[in-house]
Amino acid sequence: MEDVSFPKGFQAWGLACGIKKNGKPDLGILVSEPPAQVFSAFTRNAVKAAPVLFDQEVASGGGKLSHVLVNSGNANACTGARGYADVTAEVALVRALAAPKGEVMVSSTGVIGEYLPMDKIKAGIARLFKKGAAEGAGETFGPFVHSIMTTDTFEKKTMKSLVLEGKEVRLGGVAKGAGMIRPNMATMLSYITTDLDLDAGYAPTFLAAVEKSFNSISVDGDMSTNDTALLLANGASGVRYASLGGEARKAFDDGLRDVMEELAKLIIRDGEGATKLVTIETVGARTSEDAKAVCRAIANSPLVKTAFFGGDANWGRVLAAAGSSGAELVPEKTALEFCGVQVMAQGGALAYDEDDLAERMKSKDVSVKVDLGLGKEAWTYWTCDLSYEYVKINAAYRT
Amino acid sequence: MEDVSFPKGFQAWGLACGIKKNGKPDLGILVSEPPAQVFSAFTRNAVKAAPVLFDQEVASGGGKLSHVLVNSGNANACTGARGYADVTAEVALVRALAAPKGEVMVSSTGVIGEYLPMDKIKAGIARLFKKGAAEGAGETFGPFVHSIMTTDTFEKKTMKSLVLEGKEVRLGGVAKGAGMIRPNMATMLSYITTDLDLDAGYAPTFLAAVEKSFNSISVDGDMSTNDTALLLANGASGVRYASLGGEARKAFDDGLRDVMEELAKLIIRDGEGATKLVTIETVGARTSEDAKAVCRAIANSPLVKTAFFGGDANWGRVLAAAGSSGAELVPEKTALEFCGVQVMAQGGALAYDEDDLAERMKSKDVSVKVDLGLGKEAWTYWTCDLSYEYVKINAAYRT
Repeated sequence: MEDVSFPKGFQAWGLACGIKKNGKPDLGILVSEPPAQVFSAFTRNAVKAAPVLFDQEVASGGGKLSHVLVNSGNANACTGARGYADVTAEVALVRALAAPKGEVMVSSTGVIGEYLPMDKIKAGIARLFKKGAAEGAGETFGPFVHSIMTTDTFEKKTMKSLVLEGKEVRLGGVAKGAGMIRPNMATMLSYITTDLDLDAGYAPTFLAAVEKSFNSISVDGDMSTNDTALLLANGASGVRYASLGGEARKAFDDGLRDVMEELAKLIIRDGEGATKLVTIETVGARTSEDAKAVCRAIANSPLVKTAFFGGDANWGRVLAAAGSSGAELVPEKTALEFCGVQVMAQGGALAYDEDDLAERMKSKDVSVKVDLGLGKEAWTYWTCDLSYEYVKINAAYRT
Repeated sequence: MEDVSFPKGFQAWGLACGIKKNGKPDLGILVSEPPAQVFSAFTRNAVKAAPVLFDQEVASGGGKLSHVLVNSGNANACTGARGYADVTAEVALVRALAAPKGEVMVSSTGVIGEYLPMDKIKAGIARLFKKGAAEGAGETFGPFVHSIMTTDTFEKKTMKSLVLEGKEVRLGGVAKGAGMIRPNMATMLSYITTDLDLDAGYAPTFLAAVEKSFNSISVDGDMSTNDTALLLANGASGVRYASLGGEARKAFDDGLRDVMEELAKLIIRDGEGATKLVTIETVGARTSEDAKAVCRAIANSPLVKTAFFGGDANWGRVLAAAGSSGAELVPEKTALEFCGVQVMAQGGALAYDEDDLAERMKSKDVSVKVDLGLGKEAWTYWTCDLSYEYVKINAAYRT
């Protein structure tokens, strides 16, 4: 109840159907009653998994959403027409068993290039919808969030209660990690629910929040074939966004962004081999695109990431990464801070207490701030350091 | 004589002037008599070192080049107006001592954010030009290539003799590595010499060869503040490119590209922590920009690079990296080969001899080939794997 099922009208659960060889949960369902307005963001990779292609069609249809079926252990990516047919078969089975009033979406994460074990999945879907009856018969159901985990070392979930003009509105969310897994790549999946009533016109606000959260994190700069972020708004609170005043709307927008930012940071904190969460802030940019580009170049620089692993406030690497971003940058106007200590201004090194900064750089939460000194735009990005463990996890031969 | 001084009319040497604390060579000079037509390519980083800014001005002036002064141990980057004034002081001293008939350029590589030790450099320049007299007095001069080395573990040089319409034309070249060094970032420097007479109009052909060589390699995707590639053509062979027939011109163009490609590959082979040279070939692209983008995305993917370190023919990671490149790609038309073994076609996995491929992946020279199946354009790129040693070298705290 502390996650996607916290807002009214949502239920979510999962079980183990045998896709994963280790017997861990690998199939889950998120249900909204009444059906929810859905807002979606998918991977921009040209190689899109079958469920992503399917969900994009559902999203473009504009219908409300009743169910999201998820599985881990198999990404159903690079599986061609058979992979897509498997998605439609899954959805047909959900429709037959649950008679949803709205649409059904599907997400998958795990190994790519292998077909879904449809026998196991079909049996699993049947068992999913026996919840209640089956629990009495000894069937084990678990939290939805467990069914999307792959190499995640902890569950990523959050909940929030807002009071908007005197009425409670709830938000909940779960996510799974963006770290990359053996033998193939993993995925960022995230589902956010709210019982506020949102119109389709809210999409630009949702997408802007995606840009500021899930699109402002990087473990290793790679983009998955399955990345998916969904916001489901079912209106079960009886509160309509469109009827709220500006202050209450802003409170909801901020609350939603907080939820998404929190999930995004949890993903980074659980990045493969990560020992530190690195917050990268760029201010003083001429445009927000420039600010984001500088953040992204720093976040994706292996030189910067290894320096953070080593506790090294290496401003030369940060400046050079910023300079390679394509953003407008004038070294003589640029200032740099590590963990609150200014180390560079006007393109040149400053004197600072090296012992003090070395101590700050040992923290699990470190930061770098770039002031371009050119304008008023800013962006914040999160990444992790690059450790021996990352190499170890990702160099291991497929078994 | 086996490098930049192989072509007629070029001399080059170096010595240790004390910039490096370990007493290794750190100052060198390349001299062309007669002065040479110069073709140049510099870093695209917005943060450019003082010598790069200076050389760009010289290049835009269009004058012929007599001398290139180089130093290692200090990059003279992020040093502002004082750094630029130091470059002009170096050049003034070269002019006073050597009375060059043409222009003078300067390159630096090493630590960034520190001012050049001008006393040591001025004394070193004076000693450089006592070669001959000073050798009798016990002064030690060494190869030019040693004076540009930083973390390079071997010298990178090459030479080539061509016979064009019955006359010998020579090419020579040296380079230093693009790996990144403690405490700050290093640089790709390369100097190519020829005694062919080339007009300024050759610039597009030179720049195209730079794209196919130095701009088609990646150790870690970072771009230095000091990257410089120069081609000096002094005409001392008495052969004019403009007077040659098409076949001889092509022979020279190919020879030049071979020299540049060889130097570029030596840089990668000496990449920090590298255990393998990875050749990435993309064919069947609609445009050469697409082919290059796919190569670059694969070369810069930490997931792909760690997989090569682990000897893992991980086609899912390669395909996903290609898909994220922004290039036109249709999974169902894409084929992949590792070390000559086809592992994927039409977007799906193929059966292959896993033991055989595992054996091939153990080689120090490995390859991946992507056929996009969309057109006729191709590109080749070189990178190295990502090892524990890379993390170790780059995570070490500055001392």
